Amino acid sequence: MSTKVLLDESEIPRQWYNIAADLPSPLQPPLGPGGKPISPDMLAPVFPMNLIEQEVTQQRWVDIPEEILEILYLWRPSPLYRAKRLEKALGTPARIYYKNEGVSPAGSHKPNTAVPQAWYNKQFGIKRLTTETGAGQWGCALAFACSLLGLECKVYMVKVSFEQKPFRRLMMEAWGGKCSASPSSETKAGRDVLARDPNCPGSLGIAISEAVEAAVTDSSGKTRYSLGSVLNHVMLHQTIIGLEAKKQLAKIGEKKVDVVTACAGGGSNFAGVAFPFVCDKIAGADIDIIPVEPSSCPTMTRGPFAYDHGDIACMTPLLPMHTLGHTFVPPAIHAGGLRYHGMAPLVSQTIVEGLVTPRAYHQLECYEAAVMWARTEGFISAPETSHAIACVIDEARKAKEEGKEKVILMNWSGHGLMDLVGYDKYFRGQLEDFPLPEDEMQKSLAAIKDLPKPRVAKTGKW
Amino acid sequence: MSTKVLLDESEIPRQWYNIAADLPSPLQPPLGPGGKPISPDMLAPVFPMNLIEQEVTQQRWVDIPEEILEILYLWRPSPLYRAKRLEKALGTPARIYYKNEGVSPAGSHKPNTAVPQAWYNKQFGIKRLTTETGAGQWGCALAFACSLLGLECKVYMVKVSFEQKPFRRLMMEAWGGKCSASPSSETKAGRDVLARDPNCPGSLGIAISEAVEAAVTDSSGKTRYSLGSVLNHVMLHQTIIGLEAKKQLAKIGEKKVDVVTACAGGGSNFAGVAFPFVCDKIAGADIDIIPVEPSSCPTMTRGPFAYDHGDIACMTPLLPMHTLGHTFVPPAIHAGGLRYHGMAPLVSQTIVEGLVTPRAYHQLECYEAAVMWARTEGFISAPETSHAIACVIDEARKAKEEGKEKVILMNWSGHGLMDLVGYDKYFRGQLEDFPLPEDEMQKSLAAIKDLPKPRVAKTGKW
Repeated sequence: MSTKVLLDESEIPRQWYNIAADLPSPLQPPLGPGGKPISPDMLAPVFPMNLIEQEVTQQRWVDIPEEILEILYLWRPSPLYRAKRLEKALGTPARIYYKNEGVSPAGSHKPNTAVPQAWYNKQFGIKRLTTETGAGQWGCALAFACSLLGLECKVYMVKVSFEQKPFRRLMMEAWGGKCSASPSSETKAGRDVLARDPNCPGSLGIAISEAVEAAVTDSSGKTRYSLGSVLNHVMLHQTIIGLEAKKQLAKIGEKKVDVVTACAGGGSNFAGVAFPFVCDKIAGADIDIIPVEPSSCPTMTRGPFAYDHGDIACMTPLLPMHTLGHTFVPPAIHAGGLRYHGMAPLVSQTIVEGLVTPRAYHQLECYEAAVMWARTEGFISAPETSHAIACVIDEARKAKEEGKEKVILMNWSGHGLMDLVGYDKYFRGQLEDFPLPEDEMQKSLAAIKDLPKPRVAKTGKW
Repeated sequence: MSTKVLLDESEIPRQWYNIAADLPSPLQPPLGPGGKPISPDMLAPVFPMNLIEQEVTQQRWVDIPEEILEILYLWRPSPLYRAKRLEKALGTPARIYYKNEGVSPAGSHKPNTAVPQAWYNKQFGIKRLTTETGAGQWGCALAFACSLLGLECKVYMVKVSFEQKPFRRLMMEAWGGKCSASPSSETKAGRDVLARDPNCPGSLGIAISEAVEAAVTDSSGKTRYSLGSVLNHVMLHQTIIGLEAKKQLAKIGEKKVDVVTACAGGGSNFAGVAFPFVCDKIAGADIDIIPVEPSSCPTMTRGPFAYDHGDIACMTPLLPMHTLGHTFVPPAIHAGGLRYHGMAPLVSQTIVEGLVTPRAYHQLECYEAAVMWARTEGFISAPETSHAIACVIDEARKAKEEGKEKVILMNWSGHGLMDLVGYDKYFRGQLEDFPLPEDEMQKSLAAIKDLPKPRVAKTGKW
């Protein structure tokens, strides 16, 4: 058995998988003002029509344009690894496999959707994309994609990250992206915030407002907004991960996968690896599919399935999703990409349907897992990714207890080379496990209780 | 034509290539006190005997132990890329290929030798390795290798880098390496320096002294020292790069390579890709083989071929090499890995023999090249690597002028994700081209003029 399984470029999946076509109950529509369903036309000032079509399509398979593949080939098909040293260290009979998405130029899975999004915008005649970013992973991915496709890229980066974590901003600039600290004086949304609080540290909600405003107010009509997770078309683009993994497992004769896991912030990294296996599960396969989140931001394990806004400023439509309420501010864990109050509607729907079983881990056990990973598998993991590793280690130990030769598949979503400060604090004993702020959560949940309710087909929590 | 050419693990080269067996004139021995050749036994307190044997072997092919390959498989065979977007941007008829060594867990080519060195030490019963590091690339690679092989790793990191560039230290610690700022109070060499100057910022020379002392004074006899470049066995281990490249080029039907280039600090990255092609050139092939260095540290293009010490403190034997004199302190360019006064004896010998043709570039043109690279090929390059990119771009433009379909091969030695501050300064116009400090150079050359002289077989510069 070799360490990794490669696919030639000729073996890359040439279609994305759209789980919307297979869900037992249909996805419910986003709702606009007055609780009315949003029509595709209403999204046209924000997104190009070809991506809006992807957002609402019920087609099971969507062709990947050749020009997109030409860029994805820079790092795709990504290698599938067998974590033999970790297996040995754990003494587990389980066979542990992981997709290495850290090999992309931006270092994570995010370019899998940044490239298609930039490409479809370009096809639609768009010259410039705007977006927001927290710690910077998504901003980097979009700047990279725009650079190779000749689009301008404007990123509003949460000011506290802009100041404390300059390196991802420098990556964006290396790719020619323009990055501003948000709140900025460039938009009305930003100026309003600054007028109230000139020292405001910013938030993802404010940055979203700025990025959307910058897109819709551009009088040339050549600017659109781009989002790195949550939406259906983002999940679609990421399924290339799981589709490749299936081919790679088949190539080495693995016929059955028992466990599939990945961390989930907005949901795209999890959906990417998991949805092709959820498809099998819908058809009857026996697979444990586990999205992993932080215990201090337990959107999937504690949040109800409800209609809620995607942003704190309530600029986005209402989406049917697991949510802690759009005013919920999670504790300052290092896995910034998992600090989101909501969850992609498609992922939420698979939870409601009982197809996937979310799990939560505390920060310290995730760092412990990541250190074990670095010292066995060699790669230094992003703090987000470490949540999936904690789950893999638990599942491998369980297989040992049960004496079962389970096959475990994980999405190793990105490297942690820009996130080393968290490791330093961990080694110095300066990290803690934040308790869930229960009162805050109840307050933010109360704030959405009068919003419209989604129907719940199978299991009801609301 | 695909974007990249992969090899399966079954296709990895299973022997390293030793150019010492093919050099027109034999390599001259290192000299010890009194100008006497160093015998292998004299190196035994510093290196394990199995590596000393590799250092002096004349055998053309050296088997790679299977257990070493098992670890190299984490990132090897590394992909060979065709730089199609760069070609298009330059409008060149040249076909540009590059090996991507940034895919290793440590992000550069350095683990190619760190893993074998750690493995051979372990085979010899060694429990602990010491080394020095400047900006930290080599320290990271050795910490990674020791981690996977269960050895302790102690790194003396130049204090100014330890304080200004904490991230590579954090990588070492993630792999369990122990890293101290040098000069430290842990060694006599360090304490002596601190007694004279408590605020000494450190230097590679001091750090080498500390690392060697820490190895040879360990009374258990279970500690040895490890060096990341310059020595023959390091060049040997890196040849896997060029050997893979040859297989990959053959796989896609490229029969003839016209230009091979890489940056050269101590010489191992250049030797790694180039020596298998130097072998062809010795046999009569027409190839331009170009090691690239900074104009402000022009070891190969301005330094004579002479016997000199590898370190400022004169603790190492005298080596026959191109050198600017061991007291030469280059200007503070960002490509820290290229700020070395000497050059590997094997690389130096190929220069003397007229087999390779060194070239020097200034810092600003290298950053300009690296930015063009990021915005066409997508990957952010280490500042050292950018020197090779500058050469590739010049050669591709030359091919355009000449209207020739040349094949250019470069070693992309590592990513620049830990070196983004240099890009930031470049974009802000805060970087400059340092002139070569001529007076300093003449002074440091004068200081070695009474040392023994190596014989020069073909061309004489000394």
